[in-house]
Amino acid sequence: SVTLFGVVDAGVSSYSNKSDLAVPSLTAPFLPGSVKVSRTALSNSGYNSSRIGFRGTEDLGGGLAASFWLEAPISNDDGQQGIATFARRSTVSLSGGFGEIRLGRDYTPTFWNDTVFDPFGTNGVGTNLISTANTSFGTWLGGGTTSVPGFTNVTGSNYVRASNSVGYFLPPNLGGFYGQLMYAFNERDKYDPGAATPTALNTQRTGRYVGGRFGYANGPLDVAASYGNSTIGDNFFVGTTTSVKTFNLGASYDFGVVKLFGEYSKAKNEVDVENAFLVAAPDVDLKGWLLGATVPVGPGLIRVAYSAVKYDFNLPTTPFFTTDDPKANKFAIGYVHNLSKRTALYATVARVRNKNGAGLNLGGPAFVTTLSGAAYAPKTSTGYDFGIRHAF
Amino acid sequence: SVTLFGVVDAGVSSYSNKSDLAVPSLTAPFLPGSVKVSRTALSNSGYNSSRIGFRGTEDLGGGLAASFWLEAPISNDDGQQGIATFARRSTVSLSGGFGEIRLGRDYTPTFWNDTVFDPFGTNGVGTNLISTANTSFGTWLGGGTTSVPGFTNVTGSNYVRASNSVGYFLPPNLGGFYGQLMYAFNERDKYDPGAATPTALNTQRTGRYVGGRFGYANGPLDVAASYGNSTIGDNFFVGTTTSVKTFNLGASYDFGVVKLFGEYSKAKNEVDVENAFLVAAPDVDLKGWLLGATVPVGPGLIRVAYSAVKYDFNLPTTPFFTTDDPKANKFAIGYVHNLSKRTALYATVARVRNKNGAGLNLGGPAFVTTLSGAAYAPKTSTGYDFGIRHAF
Amino acid sequence: SVTLFGVVDAGVSSYSNKSDLAVPSLTAPFLPGSVKVSRTALSNSGYNSSRIGFRGTEDLGGGLAASFWLEAPISNDDGQQGIATFARRSTVSLSGGFGEIRLGRDYTPTFWNDTVFDPFGTNGVGTNLISTANTSFGTWLGGGTTSVPGFTNVTGSNYVRASNSVGYFLPPNLGGFYGQLMYAFNERDKYDPGAATPTALNTQRTGRYVGGRFGYANGPLDVAASYGNSTIGDNFFVGTTTSVKTFNLGASYDFGVVKLFGEYSKAKNEVDVENAFLVAAPDVDLKGWLLGATVPVGPGLIRVAYSAVKYDFNLPTTPFFTTDDPKANKFAIGYVHNLSKRTALYATVARVRNKNGAGLNLGGPAFVTTLSGAAYAPKTSTGYDFGIRHAF
Repeated sequence: SVTLFGVVDAGVSSYSNKSDLAVPSLTAPFLPGSVKVSRTALSNSGYNSSRIGFRGTEDLGGGLAASFWLEAPISNDDGQQGIATFARRSTVSLSGGFGEIRLGRDYTPTFWNDTVFDPFGTNGVGTNLISTANTSFGTWLGGGTTSVPGFTNVTGSNYVRASNSVGYFLPPNLGGFYGQLMYAFNERDKYDPGAATPTALNTQRTGRYVGGRFGYANGPLDVAASYGNSTIGDNFFVGTTTSVKTFNLGASYDFGVVKLFGEYSKAKNEVDVENAFLVAAPDVDLKGWLLGATVPVGPGLIRVAYSAVKYDFNLPTTPFFTTDDPKANKFAIGYVHNLSKRTALYATVARVRNKNGAGLNLGGPAFVTTLSGAAYAPKTSTGYDFGIRHAF
Repeated sequence: SVTLFGVVDAGVSSYSNKSDLAVPSLTAPFLPGSVKVSRTALSNSGYNSSRIGFRGTEDLGGGLAASFWLEAPISNDDGQQGIATFARRSTVSLSGGFGEIRLGRDYTPTFWNDTVFDPFGTNGVGTNLISTANTSFGTWLGGGTTSVPGFTNVTGSNYVRASNSVGYFLPPNLGGFYGQLMYAFNERDKYDPGAATPTALNTQRTGRYVGGRFGYANGPLDVAASYGNSTIGDNFFVGTTTSVKTFNLGASYDFGVVKLFGEYSKAKNEVDVENAFLVAAPDVDLKGWLLGATVPVGPGLIRVAYSAVKYDFNLPTTPFFTTDDPKANKFAIGYVHNLSKRTALYATVARVRNKNGAGLNLGGPAFVTTLSGAAYAPKTSTGYDFGIRHAF
Repeated sequence: SVTLFGVVDAGVSSYSNKSDLAVPSLTAPFLPGSVKVSRTALSNSGYNSSRIGFRGTEDLGGGLAASFWLEAPISNDDGQQGIATFARRSTVSLSGGFGEIRLGRDYTPTFWNDTVFDPFGTNGVGTNLISTANTSFGTWLGGGTTSVPGFTNVTGSNYVRASNSVGYFLPPNLGGFYGQLMYAFNERDKYDPGAATPTALNTQRTGRYVGGRFGYANGPLDVAASYGNSTIGDNFFVGTTTSVKTFNLGASYDFGVVKLFGEYSKAKNEVDVENAFLVAAPDVDLKGWLLGATVPVGPGLIRVAYSAVKYDFNLPTTPFFTTDDPKANKFAIGYVHNLSKRTALYATVARVRNKNGAGLNLGGPAFVTTLSGAAYAPKTSTGYDFGIRHAF
């Protein structure tokens, strides 16, 4: 009654991240105009995320079923991460005509559009920029991430997944309509009277996630919208709550010879203030869009995607200086050659271009931002994956 | 030849722990009379401990068999703990007409009565107080616990389980009699001559466990007694050894319409001194008892338990002040609704009452013990579990 | 399509490591002439390494196959290490008439001769001294090892295994000839221009491994040679690279009543200098040899091995003082009693003798090297394993 399943995906990847001297000047006449830092590595998960999982379903009669799903991320390139966590998914469910109630750690509703409408499925160097930018977006206004040392995928950012969640899914067979809701407990301590709250703790709501997704899939069309609110910081005594609010809308249409993908995403990192006399920091906005296509070629698949993001810090305009908002775009192209349903060879190349201080890369070492005291600004990030994906 | 098995148990739990101002006085006129700290969480293991295990048996012929059992605790509510350890059980055995020899990490003989004669099986908010009090009892006289960071269940306290153990089990079919012995190696270094022992190490016997259990189960009756000695600290040069000595006796009788449970437990945390001129700290005694019942109701089971513990610090009596010994009691009631043999819904509510400085809770955040410099004494701890248990 | 396999091996082991007072003198008249430190423990992997693994192969047609192998070391004696890593092996392969391409973490070619031509298979107290000495050989000239805290087998030393590797294996059926090549990526960052390399990082090549093995196995004979180069340290600005270069040659011949084993090994830990004016530290050489035999006795097997190693620091000879090079030898004898193909009882005893400052042991606590300010020199290390190995 248990299905053991998994993916072992390994490849050779290379990353090259270039920065330009920010303000070429007389004070730094001998500094190089640009600095490139690169790395070649055996990587995992270039096409599909490497994993091992256990899952099963029990028919309880009367249309009712109980099921579980425990799925671990693994780092098969270096063998350092086995089934240490079930950070990819760890749920128990009760389902029936009413839909499905699911308890545990699972994908957030707001992440789905970022990955299912990406021809590269947010894996490898081809991962779309909306996903790359949103992954680190929670840190802009002081939100923190907690993680288990040495293991990936377990964080408090709740962008991709949320722990301690209760989810509800609509039943299938609603004429193509589908939908889900999720609430993730923050599991913080509440003091009564509130004045007994320790000053150091002061994170009573951090970690909470609320969101939902609703879509329609029929024949060649799939379209879905989602909205979520993730509490990433709060201060009980000051009376502030910091949250990331995300909306996105994605669609794909399969014409047979080509399948088109598109997504629009809008996220806001904002501080809510209870105290009327306190002026909050301005919101940070993040907008992104994606256009992509896949073209089947015999046993293979060509994949192409263009994605772009733009930050807006909502700073007051000043008469003399205007700082243009940071933005970045990315182009990725790749080919997957299926040796069987379970085994495929793949190759992807991609390039990110940063402007006005944006610093997104597609993997590998961090951009050089200072050298001999001079500032360098991130510019391009280029890279490739070349590997094999084997599923079992 | 391998059986893969497991339990995924998740639910919503809430805990509320209240402390009262210890000495209401003129110096703290504006302090609240009581402070409550509460938490609501998605929890695991409210009915049965979440786990994944691998086990198997090989028939060697001639009545002989070899078997193994590797069982990992998992935290399916947050997915942070996968099969990182086999801390629940990790053994290899050789068995035959003589009984069974078992090597590895296993339950201690003295823990069994605390759990099998508890209607709530030491899981969730209903866990009996004997178990709650004994879990932390080793720390009273300076015994330490070691653990792997980030993972539960691997500790040096040896209350529930012991690592590095050799166990012996009587064969089945002794007319209802059963029994087991366990010796756990401390794996400490011994120096010859002894004077070469490093001062800093000085824990030559810490971690050793010796114990046994003997019982009789026939028809509706099950009764068993156990005794164990766990070395929790020692100092080679001073010549002291600190140990927890535990005795308990438990029984259950199944009348059909109701099954009754009872247990009596006595533990002593004492310092043995080799030096005749040294006066040891007085022993700390811990006594506890339990009365419980389960009542089958169609596909369900009602569970009730009352348990109580009392500490005795064996302090000399003083003419003017008497400090009453700390004590606590607990009442728990719950219902389990079996959807199948493998899947059940459950609900439990429980309440702990502390007196004279006892500070036991049923889960959740720690009691508030100081506020604005004033002392608060733990009083009540209330909570509930509401969840689903799915086994595979 | 997945095979779940494993070994659970546990036993009682004892180790006793004795050091002698290095320079008995009038200044330390009351110090003991020798100090012995010993330990008895429940151990794992005394005969075969305890493990759990998942592996599978998919026939892709046309002689092509894809396969994966994920194997975790486990510590079943204390249950603290479950499937936390796949540090024993973690690979995905594509194989066909051309041979096999294997990606991930795997054994290095240079380790194979050290283990397959050892009657004790580098497990337990019988492990040959070539392996014991090479395990720590990378640390002699400043090479470091990195590891995941709390888990064994994941290190940067690349003696036994290498992460992030690409391997090639000759196809079978080459008339008994077999061979393999391996390249392991160091995954370090490269800066362009090179002058931008951070001083603190300065380990651009550390972790790289290149090696190969070639052999012939036919009927009773098996003989193989291997060579490898492991980069264990480097300094970009000084222009030095430290590497361990290993060559070994091993053979076994099965006469039926007895199977003989032999190996010769030579390793060099050397610093390559790019700067012509810089004088590098002298190389450290490590030579070792092994003679062994196994004798089948009914369902059992007697195992005997003698191994010896010698270090050479290539120090300049001085007229008055000569420091003899450290050396050590070891004798091990044991018996394995097979209860079935999967289950065996085993016993091994062994003794290491150190001379001229060598400090190799067969397990357990470290040698005492100082006592009350006086130096002690490691001498003998004796120990035994007595246990059970169960495979599934």
